[in-house]
Amino acid sequence: MRLLNGQPQDLISMADRALQFGDGVFRTMRCTGGAIEFWGRHYTRLQQDCTALGIVCPSEEILLEDLRRLTPVDAALKIIITRGETARGYVVPDQLQPNRIVQATSLPAYPEKLHQEGAKVRVCNTRASWQPALAGVKHLNRLENVLARREWSDPSVFEGLMLDRDGYVIEGVMSNVLVLSDNILSTPKLEQSGVSGVMCEVVFDAALQHGFGVEKRVWTLDEIKKADAIWLTNSLVGLLPVSELCDRHFEPHTAQALLSAALKQLRQKEKFAIVALPDMTKG
Amino acid sequence: MRLLNGQPQDLISMADRALQFGDGVFRTMRCTGGAIEFWGRHYTRLQQDCTALGIVCPSEEILLEDLRRLTPVDAALKIIITRGETARGYVVPDQLQPNRIVQATSLPAYPEKLHQEGAKVRVCNTRASWQPALAGVKHLNRLENVLARREWSDPSVFEGLMLDRDGYVIEGVMSNVLVLSDNILSTPKLEQSGVSGVMCEVVFDAALQHGFGVEKRVWTLDEIKKADAIWLTNSLVGLLPVSELCDRHFEPHTAQALLSAALKQLRQKEKFAIVALPDMTKG
Repeated sequence: MRLLNGQPQDLISMADRALQFGDGVFRTMRCTGGAIEFWGRHYTRLQQDCTALGIVCPSEEILLEDLRRLTPVDAALKIIITRGETARGYVVPDQLQPNRIVQATSLPAYPEKLHQEGAKVRVCNTRASWQPALAGVKHLNRLENVLARREWSDPSVFEGLMLDRDGYVIEGVMSNVLVLSDNILSTPKLEQSGVSGVMCEVVFDAALQHGFGVEKRVWTLDEIKKADAIWLTNSLVGLLPVSELCDRHFEPHTAQALLSAALKQLRQKEKFAIVALPDMTKG
Repeated sequence: MRLLNGQPQDLISMADRALQFGDGVFRTMRCTGGAIEFWGRHYTRLQQDCTALGIVCPSEEILLEDLRRLTPVDAALKIIITRGETARGYVVPDQLQPNRIVQATSLPAYPEKLHQEGAKVRVCNTRASWQPALAGVKHLNRLENVLARREWSDPSVFEGLMLDRDGYVIEGVMSNVLVLSDNILSTPKLEQSGVSGVMCEVVFDAALQHGFGVEKRVWTLDEIKKADAIWLTNSLVGLLPVSELCDRHFEPHTAQALLSAALKQLRQKEKFAIVALPDMTKG
């Protein structure tokens, strides 16, 4: 189900700049039991991303009202904010009205054992672009992710890593990367490439609370192959251990249980109920 | 006026991947007197760009039939081919049906003296991204052009140059760049950044026919400021001399008349009539 500017709608003007130029931002969120996980963080990031592109971000109230109308219980929620509609050309007229889209789709059906057994990961030939003006922003120019995802069809491969021009690891096609080495949990700097994800930030916070050292740094592929453990994160899959990266196999790491438990706590603490479910504990 | 898959339509599904990811390609063409300038070249490029992204390009016959239904006389025509519609995620299912959009808008009203007096050009802070998988392709991920165009509002500035990470000149926000130096006409290599334009290729051909040396090379900003002449090209503005770039003023160059005349000839030779106009010479 989709809403456009609060109204149930499947269609949008072909003059919308998201279609013409990819001129907009988005968020993907997990809703479970009628509550959005990490809503506060998602909305903050949406505001930051809108600011980075010079788009007026809708108020939290308006977006929550839209999301409530989707009456999601367990769903993947997506918000798209576009710059609005223009006839032709890159010039943005003053007072352009953004379009806001919310959509609910079913949560991806991950195999039951995925989180226990871990994910098989490949390395993509498609590189992450260098573009400091857009790095970190969750914007709608995602063609490189589409091309990278088209590189494999083997369903046993969960994710592909994308490197930058200089061979440094940036991210997965649809996830961020966390690397544990010598008890330091690190994630790639995303100042010139890549998309910052809320789940990665959450796990970082969880790690800090549990006494891990954390840092943002650069990693070559050879370096992360020698790590003690690697995880992938995104809002839908959560925290997913990597079991295989090219020729390197990773054994389950003791930090996994700790980080998972910490994430579970934060998930509980930072969920935002938008649909009132009947109380099952009552008669 | 717009058509979607041959039908008059202003709306498209919000599940279209052009809106979700910028997953598609486009062409902008000039139609004058009911004829599309350089249609053959545009269609060839559209095919190449679709191939680069793995999108099935509609046949020439189907696209021409769509364009005829717009009954354009003097118009800016745009074709957009999107990969099609999917519910969520980067994965592309087999047999996905592309969407084709054609639109006609009025030709931009350039000031009468623009081509005589030349264009004032600035240099953008927004850099052209490094992305060899997409370089040269006229795809729908155009956010960096949008951000670059937002850097100025002075109407006397016609265009902004975009440099790459290393400071080499790549293109204008909405145009390609041609540089004349020591009787060699050159244009930046677009192997890692930028969009290849048909008009730039046409002027290159015209220059070759008139005995100019031509080459693709890299230029720093300082180097092109010392050039004998610079032109901007795109399908709507044609061949436009630069009169001012930062602190450098360019006097009209003798090559201008030659290149303009050659372009005029090619324009006449390579136009493709799609709307039959009443013959004004009769009656």
